[in-house]
Amino acid sequence: MIVVMSQGATKAQINDVEKKLVQLGFKTHAIYGQVKTVIGAIGDKRLLNTESITSMPGVERIVPIMKPYKLVGRELKPTPTVVDVGGVKIGGPELAVIAGPCAVESEEALMETAVKVKESGARILRGGAFKPRTSPYSFQGLQKDGLEILASVREATGLKIVSEVLDTRDVETVDRYVDMFQIGARNMQNYRLLQEVGMTNKPVLLKRGLAATIEEWLMAAEYIAATGNSQIVLCERGIRTYETATRNTIDISAIAVIKELSHLPIVVDPSHAAGNWKYVGAIAKGAVAAGADGLIVEVHLDPPSALSDGPQSLRPEKFHQLMKEVGLVAQAVGRSL
Amino acid sequence: MIVVMSQGATKAQINDVEKKLVQLGFKTHAIYGQVKTVIGAIGDKRLLNTESITSMPGVERIVPIMKPYKLVGRELKPTPTVVDVGGVKIGGPELAVIAGPCAVESEEALMETAVKVKESGARILRGGAFKPRTSPYSFQGLQKDGLEILASVREATGLKIVSEVLDTRDVETVDRYVDMFQIGARNMQNYRLLQEVGMTNKPVLLKRGLAATIEEWLMAAEYIAATGNSQIVLCERGIRTYETATRNTIDISAIAVIKELSHLPIVVDPSHAAGNWKYVGAIAKGAVAAGADGLIVEVHLDPPSALSDGPQSLRPEKFHQLMKEVGLVAQAVGRSL
Amino acid sequence: MIVVMSQGATKAQINDVEKKLVQLGFKTHAIYGQVKTVIGAIGDKRLLNTESITSMPGVERIVPIMKPYKLVGRELKPTPTVVDVGGVKIGGPELAVIAGPCAVESEEALMETAVKVKESGARILRGGAFKPRTSPYSFQGLQKDGLEILASVREATGLKIVSEVLDTRDVETVDRYVDMFQIGARNMQNYRLLQEVGMTNKPVLLKRGLAATIEEWLMAAEYIAATGNSQIVLCERGIRTYETATRNTIDISAIAVIKELSHLPIVVDPSHAAGNWKYVGAIAKGAVAAGADGLIVEVHLDPPSALSDGPQSLRPEKFHQLMKEVGLVAQAVGRSL
Amino acid sequence: MIVVMSQGATKAQINDVEKKLVQLGFKTHAIYGQVKTVIGAIGDKRLLNTESITSMPGVERIVPIMKPYKLVGRELKPTPTVVDVGGVKIGGPELAVIAGPCAVESEEALMETAVKVKESGARILRGGAFKPRTSPYSFQGLQKDGLEILASVREATGLKIVSEVLDTRDVETVDRYVDMFQIGARNMQNYRLLQEVGMTNKPVLLKRGLAATIEEWLMAAEYIAATGNSQIVLCERGIRTYETATRNTIDISAIAVIKELSHLPIVVDPSHAAGNWKYVGAIAKGAVAAGADGLIVEVHLDPPSALSDGPQSLRPEKFHQLMKEVGLVAQAVGRSL
Repeated sequence: MIVVMSQGATKAQINDVEKKLVQLGFKTHAIYGQVKTVIGAIGDKRLLNTESITSMPGVERIVPIMKPYKLVGRELKPTPTVVDVGGVKIGGPELAVIAGPCAVESEEALMETAVKVKESGARILRGGAFKPRTSPYSFQGLQKDGLEILASVREATGLKIVSEVLDTRDVETVDRYVDMFQIGARNMQNYRLLQEVGMTNKPVLLKRGLAATIEEWLMAAEYIAATGNSQIVLCERGIRTYETATRNTIDISAIAVIKELSHLPIVVDPSHAAGNWKYVGAIAKGAVAAGADGLIVEVHLDPPSALSDGPQSLRPEKFHQLMKEVGLVAQAVGRSL
Repeated sequence: MIVVMSQGATKAQINDVEKKLVQLGFKTHAIYGQVKTVIGAIGDKRLLNTESITSMPGVERIVPIMKPYKLVGRELKPTPTVVDVGGVKIGGPELAVIAGPCAVESEEALMETAVKVKESGARILRGGAFKPRTSPYSFQGLQKDGLEILASVREATGLKIVSEVLDTRDVETVDRYVDMFQIGARNMQNYRLLQEVGMTNKPVLLKRGLAATIEEWLMAAEYIAATGNSQIVLCERGIRTYETATRNTIDISAIAVIKELSHLPIVVDPSHAAGNWKYVGAIAKGAVAAGADGLIVEVHLDPPSALSDGPQSLRPEKFHQLMKEVGLVAQAVGRSL
Repeated sequence: MIVVMSQGATKAQINDVEKKLVQLGFKTHAIYGQVKTVIGAIGDKRLLNTESITSMPGVERIVPIMKPYKLVGRELKPTPTVVDVGGVKIGGPELAVIAGPCAVESEEALMETAVKVKESGARILRGGAFKPRTSPYSFQGLQKDGLEILASVREATGLKIVSEVLDTRDVETVDRYVDMFQIGARNMQNYRLLQEVGMTNKPVLLKRGLAATIEEWLMAAEYIAATGNSQIVLCERGIRTYETATRNTIDISAIAVIKELSHLPIVVDPSHAAGNWKYVGAIAKGAVAAGADGLIVEVHLDPPSALSDGPQSLRPEKFHQLMKEVGLVAQAVGRSL
Repeated sequence: MIVVMSQGATKAQINDVEKKLVQLGFKTHAIYGQVKTVIGAIGDKRLLNTESITSMPGVERIVPIMKPYKLVGRELKPTPTVVDVGGVKIGGPELAVIAGPCAVESEEALMETAVKVKESGARILRGGAFKPRTSPYSFQGLQKDGLEILASVREATGLKIVSEVLDTRDVETVDRYVDMFQIGARNMQNYRLLQEVGMTNKPVLLKRGLAATIEEWLMAAEYIAATGNSQIVLCERGIRTYETATRNTIDISAIAVIKELSHLPIVVDPSHAAGNWKYVGAIAKGAVAAGADGLIVEVHLDPPSALSDGPQSLRPEKFHQLMKEVGLVAQAVGRSL
C-alpha cells in the first residue's frame, strides 16, 4: 500500500501516519518528493480496514498495491479452476452451454425445450422458478412448483439444472433441486445471500451486477469463497451504459481481464446483454472467440407467448443453427462444444 | 400503448398484432404511414405483460404511454405524501435531517454523536447495525447488539432511529427496534426484501440503486406500496458514472424529476454521493436549494477511527456549521430546518 | 411521428398541436385514450425541426417513428456498401486489416513496421501525423513530415495509408497524401471537419465518439454523406463506461446493431478499446466472430520507446501470431483474411 | 510517480526500469514488498511521456503523484482567478448570469430578449451564430449575420456577448465581435481550436465535454493556458449517464471538485443539463447553493418557435422569476447577483 500525502502535509502529519501504519503491522518507507511525500507500507494486510488511513489529516489518498481479493485471485492460485456441475465441466477445453427459457412455465413446454436444446448441444438447462421482475405486477415465477418441474425434466433428459435463488430463506429448498445456484445480477451484492449459497457445496453461477466493476464482482465471488464454497462460475451479462440500442452493453473484454485476474471460469449470457434475439448470435460467437468458457442462452418454444424475456429468446431452430456456428468458432480458438 | 411495426411488416402481421391486442382487452387504432404502420392500443393495461407483443413478427418496438407504476405515481395521486417517522414529518415544509455514523460502533460513541447531532438540528439518528460491505473481510456491523444500542440512545435522546435491513430473515427483528427501515442501494432490487418491509407498517427509506434509473427506483417503491405500505421516503445517494473524482455522481436533477412523477418525499445523502467529507457541504446545500425534503449525513466523532466510511464522515463541529449554512439555504427556498 | 400529449392537456392544446403539424405538412390522426391523447403525424419529415412541437403547451414528448438519418440508413438503401480504399475493399467477404504505429515517428521505423505488418496480412497502414493528445505537453505528431514519410512508405510497400485529420485547415494537405481520412473519436461531432472531408472524394474512417450513441454516430456519418461523400467506414473503438479495468469498453454488439441499421461497413479498433496490449487479441477475435468487416490494430517495433500509445501496441511478432488466429476465426464465420 | 512492478517481475526488469527513470531525470527509490516491488520516482516530470515506462516488461502500472496540469491547477497558483469579460467579473463575490437564446434568429427577437434578460439581472448575452447540430438537416445558425446582430444588440443594451466558435478558420472573425468565446461540449477536445482561441486575448467559456472527466476538462483548459491565454471560465453542463429522464446528468459536485483542484471560475448551464425547462430552476438554484460562480441560461421569447433548443428554454417571465429565487439563494451562501 502506498499512502500519498497531500501537498502541504506537515512533518507531524507524516509521522502520525507512519506511526499508525506501524501499529497496524506494516513496515513503512517514506519517499520525500519535491512537492509531496509518499509512504510505502509493506505487508500484505489486505484484510485490514485502510479507510482509517485515508481519513487521517494530511492524507490525500491510498494506492493499494495488492488486489483486495485473495481466494478468487490468480495471485495466490495461478491454475484455472474447473467447476463440476453434476459431471458437466465448466472451465475446461470443452465449452459449457446452458440453455432454456427465462422462466419455467409448464412441464410440457420445459420438457420439449429441454429435449431440443440437448439435441443442439446444451448440457445444462436453465429455467427460473423464482423470478426477480422490475414490476410487482409481472409474473413472479412458479416458485416451488417450478423447481419440481425442473427436477422432473432433469430426470427425463439427463440435463443438469441451474436456477436462480432470490431469498436467503429459499436457499435450502432450492438446494434440494438444482445442480447449480444462480445469483442474478440484481443480487450480486446481496451479501447474506452470497454467504448462504457459500455454505452449501453446490456450484454457483454468479452474474455480474448491472453496474458492477470487475473488482466488485470478484469481491462478491470472494464472499462465496470465504464462506467455504469455491465452485464459482462468473457470468458476464452486459453492463449498464448510456447506449440504448441494446438493453445492456456486453463487456467482452471482461473475459480477458477475468482470465488475467482470477482462476475462476467465465461464461457469457448474450440474451440479457442484447435484450433482442437478433443480436444474440453475434454476441455469442464474439464471446467464444474472445475466450469465454461457455454460454447461457434463453430459448423459448414461442417467444411471443413467453411470460418473461420473450423478445430476447431464440426459438429452438435458431438456437440449433447458432450452436452449429458457435461450434465452428470454438474450434477456431482451440475449444470444442 | 403504441406498437410500432417495422418497415416491411406485412398486412397479416399487422392484423395478428391487432387481434392479440384486442384479446388482451385493448381497443386498437392503426395509423398507416408512408413507410411504417403504428397501432395505438387504448386501455390502461399497465399491469399486463407487453413483452408478448414485442416478440411478435413484424413488431419493431412498443412505446408505453402510461407510466408503469400506479401507486407511487402522481398520475393517480397528485398531492404530496408526508411520511411520519414517529412524529417527525418528511415531505412537509420543514426539512428532515437524519444524521449519525455509518455503523453503530459502541453505545458511548453513539450517545455522544446523537446528543451532538440533535443539538445541531437533526431529528432522526442513523446508524448501521447490519452493514453491507464490499469486502467479506470488512467489519459487518454489531448486528443485534447494534439495534439494542440504537434503541437505548433513542430512549435517552428522543431522536427517532433509522437502520438498514439486509436480509428478509431480519425484518421482524429490526422492526422491533427502528422507527424507519432503510433499504440500501445494493438491495434496491431485492424484491423479496421490499415485499417483506412492505408488509410492516413502518416507514421505509428507499435508497436509489447505484445504477438504477428513476423509473426502476419508482418501480422498487411500487413493490413496497403494492404490498401494502405507502410510507416510503426516496433517497438519492449518487449514481455510478465514469467520473472518479467523487465516489458517485449525485443526480441533483432527480429531485425535480421525482417531484414531477411521484408524490413521495425525497431526501439526499451527500456523504455516500461524494465519498469525501470535503464535498459534503456543497452537495447538501445544493440539494436543499434544488428542493430536497431532507438530508441524511454521516457524522462521526473521529473519522480516522471509524470502522466504516470514515473518509466521508463529518466531525460534529463541521456538521454543526453545515446545519447553520443549510438552514440559510432552506429559508431562501421557503423551507425551514 | 407520434406526439404524446400530457395528462390534463386541454382540447385547445390538442387542436393547436394538430394545426401546427398540418402546417408542417403532416397528416394527423388523434387517438383519445382514457387518460392521455396521442397524435399520429403521417409524413416523412425527418428533416424538419420537431423540437418546436415538443415545446408546445400540453405536449409531453415526441416519439419519432422514422430514423433521423436517411443516406446512411438501411431503410432506403438495403444493400451493404463496399468502400474501396485504393483497391482494398472494406465491407466485402475479405476482412480488411489496418495496422501500424499510433504515430509516425521516423521513416526507418515506419518502413520496417510496414514491411512486417504487410507480411502478416495487413493491407492498409495506419500512422498518425497530426496527433490529438490529452496533454498539450505530449508529442503532437510530425505533422507534414509525417505525411511525407507515410507517402514514401506507401511507395515502397504498396500498402494503402490512412491518417487522421484534426483541423479543417489541414484537409487539403492531408488529402494529397492519404488513401483514407481518419476522423478520430474526439472529433466525431466536429461538424465542420466532417463537412470538409465530405467535400473530398476520399474514403473516411469515422471513429465512434467516446460517449456517442449509435444514432449520433450515424448522424455524424450522415453529415459526411450529406456533403457528397458516401465512402464511409465506421470504426468501433470502445465507449466510456464506469469500468476502469480497460481504457474503454468495446461495444461488440454495436457491430450487429450497425449491420441492422446501416449499409456502411464497420471495423473494430481493439487497441484503443483495451488500452492494454494483453487484451487486444481477445477483442480482435471477438470482433471478427461478431461480424466486423475489419480491424485496425496498433503495432510498434518497440512499445516502450513509442511516443504515443505504447502500452496498447503489439510488437510485430505478436501481431503476426494474432493475424494467424484471426484468420482461423474469420474462416469459421465465412470470411477470409 | 510510483511504478508498480507486477508480481514475478525479475530483478533485471526492476533494474531496467530504474535505469530508464534515471535517464529521464528522476531520482529513484525502490521498496521491496513481500509480493511486489514499487519504485518511487522523484522529480516533477509531468511534462514527460510516462507511457514508455508502462510499456516496459515487468511493469504493472504507473501511479502519478502530481496532477498532469500545471497552469490551471491550484498546486502552483492557490488564489482564485477572476475573469474579466469586458468589465463583468466572473469568479468574484457577485454571480455572473449569462442568458439568451440558444441561437441568434433575428435582430428584433434578440433585442427584445436582451432587454428583458438584462432587466432580470443578466450581465452577459448568449446567442449562437455558428451552431453545432446533431443533424445536418437542422438549422446551422446565421453565421456571420448572427455575429453582426449580436454586436448591434450589445451596442444598444450594454450587455457583453458570448458566442460559440466551431472552426479554427472562424476564430479571427468571431474575435472581432464577441467579448468571450464559447467552446462547446463537442469541441472540448478539439485541440487545434483550443490553441487558436488560446492565441487571442479574449476570455474563453470552456464547456465540459459530454463524457469528459474533470481531469480531461482541466487538461483542455491547460491547452488554452499553455498557448498563452489564462482567461478561462469552466462551464459544467451535465454529463452523459444511463439516466434518460433528463438530457444529461448535471454533476453538481464538480463545482466543489474544481474549486479544490483549480483556480479557475466555474459556471453552470442548467438548460443543457436538463433538456427540459421544467427542471432548469431546481438545477440553477442547486448550482448556486453548491458554489457556482454563475449561470448560463437559455431564454427564448416563444420556445415553440425556437429554431434550436426550444424545449429547454425559459420564457422571459419565467427567467425573471428564477432570477429572483436565485438571488435569495445567492444571498444565503454569501454571494450577490
